[in-house]
Amino acid sequence: MNEFNPPKRILMGPGPSDADPRVLRALSAPLVGHLDPAFLGVMDEIQQLLRTVFETRNRLTIPVSATGSAGMEAAFVNLIEPGDAVVVCVNGVFGERMSDIVTRCGGRLTRVETQWGHGLDMEEVRKTLQRTRPRILAAVQAETSTGVLTPPARLREVLKEFPETLLLLDCVTSLGGHPVEIDRHGVDFAYSGTQKCLSCPPGLAPITVSDRGVERIRQRKTKVQSWYLDLTMVEKYWGADRTYHHTAPISMNYALRESLRLIVEEGLQNRYDRHRLNHQALVAGVEAMGLEMLVRPEDRLWVLNTVRVPDGVSDAAVRSRLLSDFGIEIGGGLGPLKDRIWRVGLMGASSHPNNVLMLLNALERILRQEGVRLAPGSGVEAASAVFDRQEPPV
Amino acid sequence: MNEFNPPKRILMGPGPSDADPRVLRALSAPLVGHLDPAFLGVMDEIQQLLRTVFETRNRLTIPVSATGSAGMEAAFVNLIEPGDAVVVCVNGVFGERMSDIVTRCGGRLTRVETQWGHGLDMEEVRKTLQRTRPRILAAVQAETSTGVLTPPARLREVLKEFPETLLLLDCVTSLGGHPVEIDRHGVDFAYSGTQKCLSCPPGLAPITVSDRGVERIRQRKTKVQSWYLDLTMVEKYWGADRTYHHTAPISMNYALRESLRLIVEEGLQNRYDRHRLNHQALVAGVEAMGLEMLVRPEDRLWVLNTVRVPDGVSDAAVRSRLLSDFGIEIGGGLGPLKDRIWRVGLMGASSHPNNVLMLLNALERILRQEGVRLAPGSGVEAASAVFDRQEPPV
Repeated sequence: MNEFNPPKRILMGPGPSDADPRVLRALSAPLVGHLDPAFLGVMDEIQQLLRTVFETRNRLTIPVSATGSAGMEAAFVNLIEPGDAVVVCVNGVFGERMSDIVTRCGGRLTRVETQWGHGLDMEEVRKTLQRTRPRILAAVQAETSTGVLTPPARLREVLKEFPETLLLLDCVTSLGGHPVEIDRHGVDFAYSGTQKCLSCPPGLAPITVSDRGVERIRQRKTKVQSWYLDLTMVEKYWGADRTYHHTAPISMNYALRESLRLIVEEGLQNRYDRHRLNHQALVAGVEAMGLEMLVRPEDRLWVLNTVRVPDGVSDAAVRSRLLSDFGIEIGGGLGPLKDRIWRVGLMGASSHPNNVLMLLNALERILRQEGVRLAPGSGVEAASAVFDRQEPPV
Repeated sequence: MNEFNPPKRILMGPGPSDADPRVLRALSAPLVGHLDPAFLGVMDEIQQLLRTVFETRNRLTIPVSATGSAGMEAAFVNLIEPGDAVVVCVNGVFGERMSDIVTRCGGRLTRVETQWGHGLDMEEVRKTLQRTRPRILAAVQAETSTGVLTPPARLREVLKEFPETLLLLDCVTSLGGHPVEIDRHGVDFAYSGTQKCLSCPPGLAPITVSDRGVERIRQRKTKVQSWYLDLTMVEKYWGADRTYHHTAPISMNYALRESLRLIVEEGLQNRYDRHRLNHQALVAGVEAMGLEMLVRPEDRLWVLNTVRVPDGVSDAAVRSRLLSDFGIEIGGGLGPLKDRIWRVGLMGASSHPNNVLMLLNALERILRQEGVRLAPGSGVEAASAVFDRQEPPV
């Protein structure tokens, strides 16, 4: 078995996104011990950088030592005790996953369901809260399976009437691409993953917990069912005590630190503007080619764009050719959207005008060969026009 | 905040161990998607390499996407259903941790306790099995907190009378340093970590599950309480289905593949011999200096050596000077052994004659400055004599 040399890819799927060369270089630095003073410094710096990117002052802001899905599990296993009422907003895979985890924690689950590809019905959310008076309302800010945005401001608005209910927000695909503004919107527990808009390899799940959330965890009557994700212990490892719990993934933390440093260098607002502009250019190009977006404009994510697969075209065949002929990875649909949409990620380092233009060009050429009638160059031209205007169109 | 440049360290603590430059280089390879055909190939190769290193033909042999402690949790959450009787052998931190996890899973726990630093009393284990007829017997092959070895052959011997009881073995610190021989000893669930004798950065937990273990999991009446660690789903992601579950840590898997490839290149027997020889040289040096090992010879690990801190010497002061003056990291004691022992890891790439000799030299110089009377050069000389003999003494 030889050395593994990965093929050259441009990662424009639902994640991982491309990592900046600086992040890859950080990964390869020699190891130090996980209780080495030098690494304790790295841990402190990561917490500080994460607070900046989450826009929070929450003390408990750390990376959980596993992927984003473990961040989701950490949220529920710590906040829920058996019998607690929990409302989960479901309009895609990740709301489904939340529901599954809630029942595994013994929570009394109520789902607010919305058709996949549509934004949440906030009136329905309000009514459900009224009826069930849950301890937790959970929602996904950026539903990666559909491309739909749930603005945390709207959740907070609804929660005004329910001051006892904690807000739990999935920021896996939003963090570093869309504003999350944890403190402004009073989010009590947010979690993310490193491989989306942070443009760091997968392997860590940044979380942030409000003081109210921490208090809720401290007042539990039962032990957290997961030892690995028990924040009452994990927080002591990341806090002043440095109490040994598990061995942090050293190299992944090096990489996370560097990816967060890149974000702070760019500036949060610049980064959001970049993600919005590339999204707008992509949509302009896609629509100029005569393709349709799945999600209506006001509910669209910038970072994950869902394009309907034209009738008679094979989703998988197109994606396969994008990968083999152009080295471009995009994603397919999941669940009810399987074979029906493409998922185009423009996340972190992958959110770049070059990528938008390369994808539009490649897609046009493949679709024409598949027999779809397209005006030559229409997609690239329309996207270029957006970039040429130099500022996002209204 | 500047780029992080780690200080130069020689990692001779309880883990992480030093990673080979080839492993660090593998980490920094560009990302591909986690469902990319190229990555699916990597996943297959890792499973194949892990089977070689675990010495097993178990189909379900994969890295769990979190650190070694999550491997421990994966073992219990998958095998235990509420009310199941479980016997845990406790003679250190990791047996304690197992006990904690068993109760979080709703298992009926019986502990077989042995003083820290001593080998298990197998007659006591037998009596406890006789009394409780558990579904699972769990033990730690290499107790990193004490330096004690539990040979799996002895556990299997005891289990002959209890064919219904599954054997669960912690191989976190043994895998790649001591023979684990999963199939030979009929281990039903073993887990490890990457940062010990595999000499890969921390972040993954290789596991292997016997067909009997898989059958037990399949026949559960209740859902696995952890979504993230639910092997009924995780195995489909790593198996032929490739069903999306979570995003595997791509870079860490690159590194694991390379670290396993290094082990296969060296050869398992050569690797065990190397670990044993370096251990014997270290012990010879330590004892020549007039220091004492905590563990009696027949129970000693090769990969984690526990040395009693001489009376009147400050454990922490010596470790701190080793780190600051020599860049050498060793570990201190935990729990009842706090301040009483040093833990010297000779794991993977860190198990090297140069390291043994450097540590002995550094320790001698520091201890003499601390007022301990030592014959100059005695430790290095005794260790060198072992190496000069070119083969492990009996």
